[in-house]
Amino acid sequence: MRINGKPHKTIWLNEDGWSVDIIDQTRLPHQFIIANLKTVEDAAHAIKAMLVRGAPLIGATAAYGLCLAIRNDASNEAMEKASDYLNSQRPTAVNLRWALNVMRNHLLPLPEEKRLNAAYEKAALIVEEDIETNRMIGVHGLELIRQIAARKTPGETINVLTHCNAGWLATTEWGTATSPVYHAAKAGIPIHVWVDETRPRNQGASLTAYELGHENIPHTIIVDNAGGHLMQHGKVDLCIVGTDRTASNGDVCNKIGTYLKALAAHDNNIPFYVALPSTTIDWQLTSGFDIPIEERGPEEVLMMTGVKAGGGETENELITIEIAAKGSPAANPAFDVTPAKYVTGLITEKGVVKATTAGLANLKSELSNVA
Amino acid sequence: MRINGKPHKTIWLNEDGWSVDIIDQTRLPHQFIIANLKTVEDAAHAIKAMLVRGAPLIGATAAYGLCLAIRNDASNEAMEKASDYLNSQRPTAVNLRWALNVMRNHLLPLPEEKRLNAAYEKAALIVEEDIETNRMIGVHGLELIRQIAARKTPGETINVLTHCNAGWLATTEWGTATSPVYHAAKAGIPIHVWVDETRPRNQGASLTAYELGHENIPHTIIVDNAGGHLMQHGKVDLCIVGTDRTASNGDVCNKIGTYLKALAAHDNNIPFYVALPSTTIDWQLTSGFDIPIEERGPEEVLMMTGVKAGGGETENELITIEIAAKGSPAANPAFDVTPAKYVTGLITEKGVVKATTAGLANLKSELSNVA
Repeated sequence: MRINGKPHKTIWLNEDGWSVDIIDQTRLPHQFIIANLKTVEDAAHAIKAMLVRGAPLIGATAAYGLCLAIRNDASNEAMEKASDYLNSQRPTAVNLRWALNVMRNHLLPLPEEKRLNAAYEKAALIVEEDIETNRMIGVHGLELIRQIAARKTPGETINVLTHCNAGWLATTEWGTATSPVYHAAKAGIPIHVWVDETRPRNQGASLTAYELGHENIPHTIIVDNAGGHLMQHGKVDLCIVGTDRTASNGDVCNKIGTYLKALAAHDNNIPFYVALPSTTIDWQLTSGFDIPIEERGPEEVLMMTGVKAGGGETENELITIEIAAKGSPAANPAFDVTPAKYVTGLITEKGVVKATTAGLANLKSELSNVA
Repeated sequence: MRINGKPHKTIWLNEDGWSVDIIDQTRLPHQFIIANLKTVEDAAHAIKAMLVRGAPLIGATAAYGLCLAIRNDASNEAMEKASDYLNSQRPTAVNLRWALNVMRNHLLPLPEEKRLNAAYEKAALIVEEDIETNRMIGVHGLELIRQIAARKTPGETINVLTHCNAGWLATTEWGTATSPVYHAAKAGIPIHVWVDETRPRNQGASLTAYELGHENIPHTIIVDNAGGHLMQHGKVDLCIVGTDRTASNGDVCNKIGTYLKALAAHDNNIPFYVALPSTTIDWQLTSGFDIPIEERGPEEVLMMTGVKAGGGETENELITIEIAAKGSPAANPAFDVTPAKYVTGLITEKGVVKATTAGLANLKSELSNVA
C-alpha cells in the first residue's frame, strides 16, 4: 500500500541483506519512522512494545526474529529457546505460535549449517503467503460488499464499520478487515468507513485512519461509544473486524470492545463479519472463552500520546499526557471474546464460512486438501 | 460531597449575594477552579462549553442564569428572550427546559419589581429540591444494592459499572447514578465502581473517578470498550447510569455508548438501572428516538486535554494534543437512546419503576398527587 503516494510494506529485509526493517507503529500517525531489528531481542521488543502489531505482522516479525537468533546460534537448543522467548511476548495472538511452528518444523530437520539461509527463505515465504492470503480475503469480502450494493440504489455509498486496525499495517499487505474495503474501492464501489477510535491504544484513529487516508478511502473517526447509535440510525451497512485468535467453534477473540459492536450489529440486523487468515484459527480450542486475555498496563488507559494541538506538519514531537483523575487505578484487558452466535460469517482466504463448528470443520478439511 | 476533605456544592451564590459560583468542570480533574457567572451570557457559556454539565446541574445553572438576566431587565419580553437563549445551549437535556419553565411559570404572574427576589428564591429552591431528589434516589437505589448483597457471600464486594458522570458533579449533591453507591458505602456495604472512561469528553475518567476518589470509594477506570468483557466474566453485579432525557415509554437518552452497555448487560443477565429525577422525563415524548441528538464538534474526538505525564501535584498546566491521523474527519454524536426493553428499572426519587409506558404512567399519577 502507499504512504505519501509511495508503495510500502510493513516488514522487509534491510539492504544489508540480513537485518530487518519495520515501521515503528507506536510513532504513527504523527511520525513515520523505520526501526531496524538486528537481534532476536530487538524482534521480541518490537512485538511486546507493539512497534509491530496485528496477528499476521506479529507472525512475520517472529519468523524474522528467529532468523536473527539463528545468525548467532543455529543449534536445536538455541532455536527452541529463541522460539519460546518470542512466543511469550504476546499471549493472545495465535499467529505468533503458528509462524514459529512453521519455522521450527521446516528448520529442525536440516543440518545446522543450512538453517540460516533456509530460515530467511521461509520467513520471506511467510510474508509472501500472507500477502496472497490477504488478497484472497479481499476478493471474497468484495463479493459480500457487492451483494449489499446490489440491494441499494446504484451509486449509493456502502458504510462499513471497523474496530481497531486489521488493516495493511496489521499485516504485510492489504490487511484483513480492510482488504474487502480496498478491493471494493478498486472495483469502483463507493465506500465509506466508520473508524472506531479503539481505546486504549487508539489503533483506529491512529492507524486505520492513517492508512485509509493515504489510500484516499473516505472515512470518519468515531469514538468507540458511537457505533451502536450509528447502527440504530441505518448508517452502517456492515461491520468487518479482524481477530487475534478464533476458536474452532467460531468464537472470535479480538481487540477489546469488538463484542459490544457485535451485540449492536445483532440488535440492528446488521451483518457482522470477521476477516481472518486461517492461520489465526486455534483448532485445538473448542471455546473462545479458553483463550488467555492479555492484561496490559494501566498507563495505556490513564495516559495518551500525541502531538501538540495546532502544530504544523513539521511539529511532530510526541507528548504524553495524563488524562484521568490522579491516583485512580485502571484495568486494561486487551481483548474480548465475541460468541460465535453474533458473528455472521468468517471471511477467510478460502471463502466465507459460517462461524460454527461445522463451518470451521469444512474449512479445515479444505485446508488439509490443499496443504 | 467533599473535595480534599472539604464539603462542596457544584453551584452556589457568591458572597456578593447576586453572582453565581460554579466549579469549572472542564478543568477537572487536573485543576480545581471556581468560575464566577455575572451575566446570562456567562451562564449560557457555562452550559454550552460544559463548565457545568449533567441534566440537574444544567437546570440549576439555567435557573440562576435567568436571575442574572432579570437583574438587567425583568420585563416579560426580556425574560422570554433570556429563557429561549438559555434553552438553546444544549438541545438534549430536558431539565434545562424544565427548570426554565418552573422559573417562568413562577415569575410571569408577579409584578416586575418583585421578580428579581422571587427568581433567586426559586433558583435556590430548585437546588434544594434537587439535593433532596438525589438523596431519595440513593435511598431507593440502596435497596436494590442490598438485595444483590443478600444473594452474595456476606462481606463480598458489590461491583457497579457506571458510564459518564451522573455523579454529584452532574447535580447539586449526591449525584443520580452515584447516589445509591454513596448510600451503600455509608451503610457499610463493600462496594467497587467500574468507571467507564466515557470518550470523547472522558467524564468518567475525569469526573466520576475524581469524585469517587475524594469520597474514598474504591473504583477502577476502564476504557469504554472493556465493560462487556467484564460482564461476560461475572465482574459486574449491576449497572447504574444517568439520563439526559427519558421518554414516557421508558426509552432512555444518555451519554453516547450507554446503549452498548445496556446490550451487554442484557446479554449477560445483569441488571441495568437508570437513575433519574422525574424532571428528566419528557412526558410528551412516546419514543426516545424522537429526541434530538446533539452533534458536537470533531475536536472532542480528535484532541485530548490533560497534564504532562510524570509531573508532580503542582505541575498542572493543561496541554491539548492531537491524537488522530492528520486530516481524518470525525463525527461526534453526544448521546444515544437505549430502548426501554434493555432497562431493568428506573430509580427515581419516588421509588424504582418499570421502564414501560405503564410504569411511567403510575409514576406520573403519583407525581400529580404530591404536586
